[in-house]
This record gives sequence, C-alpha cells and structure tokens, in this order.
Amino acid sequence: MAGVFIAFEGGEGAGKSTQAAMLEAALQRAGYRSTLLREPGSTVLGDYLRQYLIGGQPVSPLAELLMFESARAELMAERVMPLLESGAVVIADRFAGSTIAYQGYGRGIDLSRIEWLNDFATGGRYPDLTILLDIDPVIGLGRVNERQPQLALPMGDAPDRFEDETMAFHDRVRRGFLKQAEDNPETWRIIDGNRSIDAVAASVWNAVSQLP
Amino acid sequence: MAGVFIAFEGGEGAGKSTQAAMLEAALQRAGYRSTLLREPGSTVLGDYLRQYLIGGQPVSPLAELLMFESARAELMAERVMPLLESGAVVIADRFAGSTIAYQGYGRGIDLSRIEWLNDFATGGRYPDLTILLDIDPVIGLGRVNERQPQLALPMGDAPDRFEDETMAFHDRVRRGFLKQAEDNPETWRIIDGNRSIDAVAASVWNAVSQLP
Repeated sequence: MAGVFIAFEGGEGAGKSTQAAMLEAALQRAGYRSTLLREPGSTVLGDYLRQYLIGGQPVSPLAELLMFESARAELMAERVMPLLESGAVVIADRFAGSTIAYQGYGRGIDLSRIEWLNDFATGGRYPDLTILLDIDPVIGLGRVNERQPQLALPMGDAPDRFEDETMAFHDRVRRGFLKQAEDNPETWRIIDGNRSIDAVAASVWNAVSQLP
Repeated sequence: MAGVFIAFEGGEGAGKSTQAAMLEAALQRAGYRSTLLREPGSTVLGDYLRQYLIGGQPVSPLAELLMFESARAELMAERVMPLLESGAVVIADRFAGSTIAYQGYGRGIDLSRIEWLNDFATGGRYPDLTILLDIDPVIGLGRVNERQPQLALPMGDAPDRFEDETMAFHDRVRRGFLKQAEDNPETWRIIDGNRSIDAVAASVWNAVSQLP
C-alpha cells in the first residue's frame, strides 16, 4: 500500500503545528500509522541547520535558501520516502510551499529557480494534499507575540530579526501561499485559520477524509 | 581596479593547501593584496557546515551537495565578491570544480544539475584561473596517510569513511578534474603535482604571471 503525504502551510501563527499534531492524533485514533515531521528538522542534519537559522547568525538569502533545500533533501531521503514506501501517512509541518512563499514572494528570489530547487530536493514527490491555513498576518503575528518566543523559522530569522520584518513582507508571503493554492486546486485546500482551533480541525479532517 | 580570482583544485594530497598558501605569500611579497579562502569554510556558515561534514554525521548525497552549495553562496556573498570589488586577489582552496569532480564524477550525481547549482551559488562568477594540481591518486592518498588525520572534505567524509572510498572513486574524481581542464582551456591550467613542492610552486607562479 502506498502512503499518503500531507503538508501544512501558512504564515506565522496560522496554527500549523497545533493542527498538524491534532491530525496526527486523529489519524492514529482512526487506526492509521501517521508520523509528524517538521521542516527544517526531523533529521540530524535538519536539526543542525535549524539551530543555525534560529541562532541569528549571518546568512545571505541564497545560502539560506540552499540550507532549507539541503534539510529538505535529507528529510526526503531519510524519513519521507521510506515512510511513504512503508504505507504510512506522513504529515509535514511546512514544506516546499513555504520556500516559494517566504524566499520567493517574501525575499524576492526568482520563483522559477526556487521551483527548480524544490524539484531537486524533493525528487518531484510533492504532498498529495497541502492544507493552507490562511490567516490575516495581523492576527497571526498577534498570536505569535502572545505565545512568544516562538520562532519564525521559514524566514531563517531569530525572534528579533523576525519582528523587524515589515507587514508588507508578511502580506507578500500570504499572497504567495494563496497563489500556490489557486494554481494547484487538485492538491491544495485553503482553510480559514482565523477561527477557533476546533473549527479549523473539523475543516482539516474534512479535507483529509476526501483523499482517495 | 577589478580583482583577480584564482582557485586551486585537485584530489587528496595534491598539495592544494600548501601551494595556495605559498602563492598568497608570494603575491603579498610582490605587493598585491591577496586573501586565501578555503571551501567549505572562511565564513561563519561555511565553518558551521564544515564541522558537520567532518563529523561523520549522516547526510544523503543530495543534501551534502546542497550543503556545499550553501557554503559557496555564502562565501561568494560575504567574501569573494566584496574582495574582488575592492581589487584584491582572491585565492580559493577548492571551488566549484571540486563539486563537479567529487559529487558528479565521484558520486554520480547528474552533471548538468551540479552545473546549475554551481551557477546559482556563484552567480556565474567563476575563477579567472583555476590551477589543477594533477596527481596519481595512489601517490596523493599516500601523502594524506602520512600526514593524517588530514580530512578529505570535498567528499564530506570523516577520515574513516574517506579511507573506505575505493581507488576507482578517486580515479573518477581525477578524470572529472582533467575533463574540466580540457573543456575550459582558457581558464584552467593543469600542473603536475607529482613533483617537489618548489617545482610545483614555480609552475604555479608561471601560470599566475601569465594572467592579463
């Protein structure tokens, strides 16, 4: 039996980690083998690269992008592909869509080059379902500030650098996520993340239930 | 005044680090501002990635390749481009040619993809002169074993993993270097590294002196 690959995407404070963990638990209650992975991370190398990115150390935009892609290539080789081949459900807290949104729409790196790198790092194995938790950046960032010091990792930023990013940046990131969802209607679902945790979880479960 | 970019390439024990340091000193004696950089390294990120690679930690071939390219992108942004713009002579102990030779010819990753990544990480700024110190792998590896525990970094290996590589691997790497030199006669020079340090240094100085 082939496995199923589900990714959560969205801006800061959209509820990705919470919803991904709830989905993993719900799938296990329903009798599925499911594994939650986070990006970057969930491998020795991914955690090592994550440590650098959250440490506020110097990194240029292209080097940062290549670090994310390196972590992704390792995650695919070590975790995602073996799990899928064993028939498991793999849930990723962020994936290739975050790189398009943050490094592409946010930082302005050429999208076609990021797509090339995503293809290279993933070997072309993209999620069967990507759940975009869409949220107004003002609300999402408000949530992050409440629970802080949560780290804004896809931007490769330490908390202080993160707070320096403009609202225009976060608006571009949101638009980058929505554009991907529009361009890939067969595999992306947009879920309104401005609602309560339970309401969002019900929408997530509904989307996952429709998987073949 | 535009700077000059010189890279040393070659297999294990070819004498790259020795010759690069001698060239830096000779250029400074001749009144040039010259800076010796090593790859991966010479930036905070490059040294961080190098630590992982020499630690013998797990890394898949594609993730390893992306780590080298990340270190390279950082080196270009932080060191090489600013130095060249200031008019300095930049000497690199290994550069993009090592990735073609080790990850391409050695590991078997598709060459056109490595070339794409090299173009991306370097922004297309390749060395004005690449000096290939060509050496019989049997002799080079013998030198490395004598001075050990020198690390065989371009393969991303710890010393033990490095010694596990077959002679066929090192022969492919050597062939990969020679092929690049043949394909780029305007910018690559092949120097016989089987000779004494002083004889090789004289050949290196001769090649550098011919730069416009």
